Order: sequence, then structure tokens, then C-alpha cells
Amino acid sequence: MIYIGIDLGGTKIAAGITDDQGQILAEASTATIAERHYKDVVRDMASCALQALEQSGKLIDDVDSIGVGIPGVAENEGGTVIFCTNLGWHDIPLREELQKYINKPVFIDNDATVAALAENVAGVSKNAHSSIFLTLGTGVGGGIIMDGKPWTGAHGVATELGHITMEIDGIPCTCGKNGCLERYCSATALIRMGREQARLPPDSLMMARAGSEENINGKLIIDCAREGDPIAVKVFERYTKYLAIAVNTMISFFDPEMIVLGGGISMAGDFLLDAVKEKIPQYLMYKTLPYGKLELAVLGNGAGIIGAAMLGRVLKEGGTL
Amino acid sequence: MIYIGIDLGGTKIAAGITDDQGQILAEASTATIAERHYKDVVRDMASCALQALEQSGKLIDDVDSIGVGIPGVAENEGGTVIFCTNLGWHDIPLREELQKYINKPVFIDNDATVAALAENVAGVSKNAHSSIFLTLGTGVGGGIIMDGKPWTGAHGVATELGHITMEIDGIPCTCGKNGCLERYCSATALIRMGREQARLPPDSLMMARAGSEENINGKLIIDCAREGDPIAVKVFERYTKYLAIAVNTMISFFDPEMIVLGGGISMAGDFLLDAVKEKIPQYLMYKTLPYGKLELAVLGNGAGIIGAAMLGRVLKEGGTL
Repeated sequence: MIYIGIDLGGTKIAAGITDDQGQILAEASTATIAERHYKDVVRDMASCALQALEQSGKLIDDVDSIGVGIPGVAENEGGTVIFCTNLGWHDIPLREELQKYINKPVFIDNDATVAALAENVAGVSKNAHSSIFLTLGTGVGGGIIMDGKPWTGAHGVATELGHITMEIDGIPCTCGKNGCLERYCSATALIRMGREQARLPPDSLMMARAGSEENINGKLIIDCAREGDPIAVKVFERYTKYLAIAVNTMISFFDPEMIVLGGGISMAGDFLLDAVKEKIPQYLMYKTLPYGKLELAVLGNGAGIIGAAMLGRVLKEGGTL
Repeated sequence: MIYIGIDLGGTKIAAGITDDQGQILAEASTATIAERHYKDVVRDMASCALQALEQSGKLIDDVDSIGVGIPGVAENEGGTVIFCTNLGWHDIPLREELQKYINKPVFIDNDATVAALAENVAGVSKNAHSSIFLTLGTGVGGGIIMDGKPWTGAHGVATELGHITMEIDGIPCTCGKNGCLERYCSATALIRMGREQARLPPDSLMMARAGSEENINGKLIIDCAREGDPIAVKVFERYTKYLAIAVNTMISFFDPEMIVLGGGISMAGDFLLDAVKEKIPQYLMYKTLPYGKLELAVLGNGAGIIGAAMLGRVLKEGGTL
């Protein structure tokens, strides 16, 4: 059998066909144009999927199921999107609408969960019995995979790892709370820290390169830290300290076999990984016992399609764990 | 079949016989005398168990297995206690030693995990597919039960919920880290907050009752708060705020069907439960979606025996989840 995976983003719809190991056979994409009526977006999701199917040379009868990764919260029993803030979606009957075009079983899950599943099926955490995936992007998303299946909680609101409290009464978060992990571990947080420090005399290499504060981005901060600029190093050390504490929270709570870092910041590669790994031991509860491996995600943008496609394969066997 | 459950504490060994539903048929106890050689402690564990067996009127052939709850970390494959700080135990072959007296399968787990299992088999979270148990005592312990089985992680170091970070660079913890949840949500934390506030003029009802600061304990603080003393109310509100944030961390991370509060502080009953429940909504990520029920543990001290006894029943089917 083959599987359709659709990665629904705020700006782009990407659809692909995979085999049962999550290998992408063909893909197609189009702009989301989020301000449209949801039915128009879903029609384009279906048409991208059918275009990819045609390119793959396979037939609709070969398709087992359709999976969709969304930047929001879904409810798989009814096949609805509960919300999707970027798209302005609220209680959208996505399965029903998509099945008007392609009459196959439809599975929907959060994009970070989908990326976690992709790494578990075809990426760095392949065969790990339990893994936690953290996306370090504009925000921080999370996914938990246990025994090959996503864990999304008893009410579908689990793995909002970006919104666990890291600092009581800390920095206000976009979610309305204070001190969320996301405010310390996202790319946005790194940039905030960089801009704060770049202002301090003596002007840093970051400031010299960027010209002005608003041009300082995550890559620039990491590049300057890599080159040894003291202010950038200080910012990077602070960021990776927070990340090490966050990883330790994952260990002390759940102790997965592997923790995978994905998202934009993970592009810093071993420079990031080594800095975090070095700091973890000081935050461990049991300093002499083994703990989960920390690794970088390997699938990049393909994770959205692969993980979505694999939802059908892993969930058809009996729902979420 | 019947099951032997042994609750190994720093001061007391309690052993009991239960049926397969976790009902205690007989029990016996003795002092631990932690400073003895471990072999002497284990001999007394076995003799308590055999005494309870005799009282139950059952025979050794009726015994399915032995479970032991320990205040530390165990490793079930080899049947060893990795550590147990209170007892000064380190890499103790508990299964092997116990089987010298009673030759039945032996299962060992952390006491908070065991209490979590007890509530899941015979207490308030009976039949919940997923539950998290928090003990609010001298420290904060945690247990996760999924699909009827304890989740102790890929390396046995999960559910150290007392030692996830709640405040970066916060109050130093006995574990060597800073800002651990335990420093804000344990009985010890409540007492610390009470003593700090009791010093402030005007002297509080707590101080009038206690006579001196060192006599202020958790029960006294809660009693004074219940009676409306403004300083005690302030302390209790602060404590329950931290607890609500901690509960929200459990929800945002894991979203269990139920969260159960046990340990000494949970004896405050509905006064505690209502204060925490009232505060949870403001910390939720998804304010309009359902989330796990918060409940008080119901099994009290019996949980140690019941949960230990049930380890064999739930783990014999195939190890931890």
C-alpha cells in the first residue's frame, strides 16, 4: 500500500505519497492562502495530493489512507480540526470535507506530533520505543511517540511542551500565561536574548554584522557564537542552558529512550547539540544512571509529509495509545 | 491467586496479602531499623509477609508474586534496588535476597509509582486509562499509570515530578539543582512559606497558635487558612498557585485522564482540592477544551501495600509499558 501525507502550514500546503516505510515517492505543493474559506483550502489539499499520486504512477486503489499534519489541535474520532490559529479554523470537519475528493480514511494530528512520528518511522529515532520531539522554531512544539504511536493525551491536549512553566511569573507568553518554556527555548527567545545583549557596550560582532538590532536573527547569533564573539557566546550559552533544563524536564518527567531536537534552531547542528549535551549532566536527578540520547532531527521539511502519511499506518491498528 | 505487597519505608516495613482486586486480606509490620545490614532488613520483610500470609489463612501455593515499593529507584530486570538514600542502599540484589525466604516472582518499584498503581487498581483512578499521581509530602513524588501499567521510563528514571524545574535558578533543592517543583509544592515548601510569613508583623494566628516559628507545620497553616487568618490564607493561596501551575505542567505535557493528589498535604481534603481546581483554568493552554480530572487519593497508607501487591499482577503480563 501507499499513503498520502499532507502538511498543512499557514503559508504552504505540501502533499506527498509515501510507501509503508515513509519514503516519499512524489510530492506537490501550493500556497495555503489562509484567509480563504476552509473549503477552498481543503479542495487544494486534495488536488495537491492527487497531483502527487499521479506523479508517483500509483493508483487511487493503492492508497491506504490520508494523514494530515496541522498547526493546531485535532480530534481524530470525529476527524475535526478543533483549532488552527494561523488559519482561523475552529471546529472544521476536515475529514468529511477531504473525503468529498478522496474517499479514504483520514487521520489528523498536530504538526509537531507528526514530525515526531516521521523521525520515529524513518528518521533518527527509528525503532526507539519512546521518544520526545521538540521543535525549536518561532515557538516550541512537542510530540511524544510511544511504542510506535503518537501520544496525544486523554483529551488531545498533551505534548504542549512549549507551554509548560519554566519560570513562575516569568516572561509573558503569547498564550496568555507567564514563563512558558517557549519563552526561553524558541528561536524567538534566542533572538530576544541576542537583541538584548547586542545593545550592551561594547557593541558585539552581532551588531556589526546586522547593522541594526532588528536584523539580528537566530542564524546570525549562532554564527557569531561559533566564531567566538564573547557577547554572542554569552547569549548562546544562556540559550543552551535553558534548553538543557528543558531536556532535563523531559527526562525527569518521562525518561524517553531518545529526545530529538528539530525546527530552525536545530540547523545549528552539532554546535548546538554539543553545547546542550555538555550541560545536561548538571541538571540530572540521578547523575550516575543512564538517560535518553539527545539527537538532532534528520528529516528536515520532509518530516511533515512523512509523519502525516504514517499516521494512517500507525493509527489504523487501534487509535492512539 | 493472592499477592504479597511489601511497603518498605525508612522507618517501617509493612507487608500485606491482597486479592487480585487489591483488597487487603491481612497485614503485618515491623520497624525498618535502616542502619542494619540490608540482609537483616530483607529477612524482616519476608517474615512480615509470611506473618500476614498466616493471618490471611491462605497458603504459600496461593501466592502469585511479591511486589515491593521502595523509597528509591529500582531496576526490575535484575530485581535490584539501584538506590534508596534513606536506607543507604546502593545496588542491592533485593529479588535474590527475598527469594531465599519466599521463592516467588519479585517486582520492585518506587513508592510513588506503587501508590499511583494502587489508586489505579482499587482507588480513585480505578479504570482511568492514564493517570498521574503526585505525593505532596516531605518531598514531591510522582507516578504515571498508562493502560493499567506503571510507566517508569526507558531507563527507570521517569516520573521524578518533584525534580522538574519550576523556577530557573530558583530555590536550591536537596537534589543539588535549583528551582525544582518540590521546593514549591511539598509539605516542606508550605511550611517554609508559612514560617517566612509568620515572622512578618502583625503576628499571624499561625504564630499565636504555634508559640514559635519551628512549631509551624503544614496542618497548622492549613487550619489557620481554613479559619480565615489573612496571613495563613495568603500562604495557602501562594502554595495552591504553585500546585495549580504544577498540575498544569502535567496536563500540558501528558494530558492524563486523571491527576491524583496524595501524601500528607492531601489530607486537607476539599479545602485543598477546591483551591487548586479554581486556579487551574488560568494556567491552561487550551481554555475551552476538556482536561483531566483532579482528585484526592483515597487509599491512604494502605496504598503502599496494595500497589506493591498489584505490581506482580500488572507486570507479569509483559513488563512495563
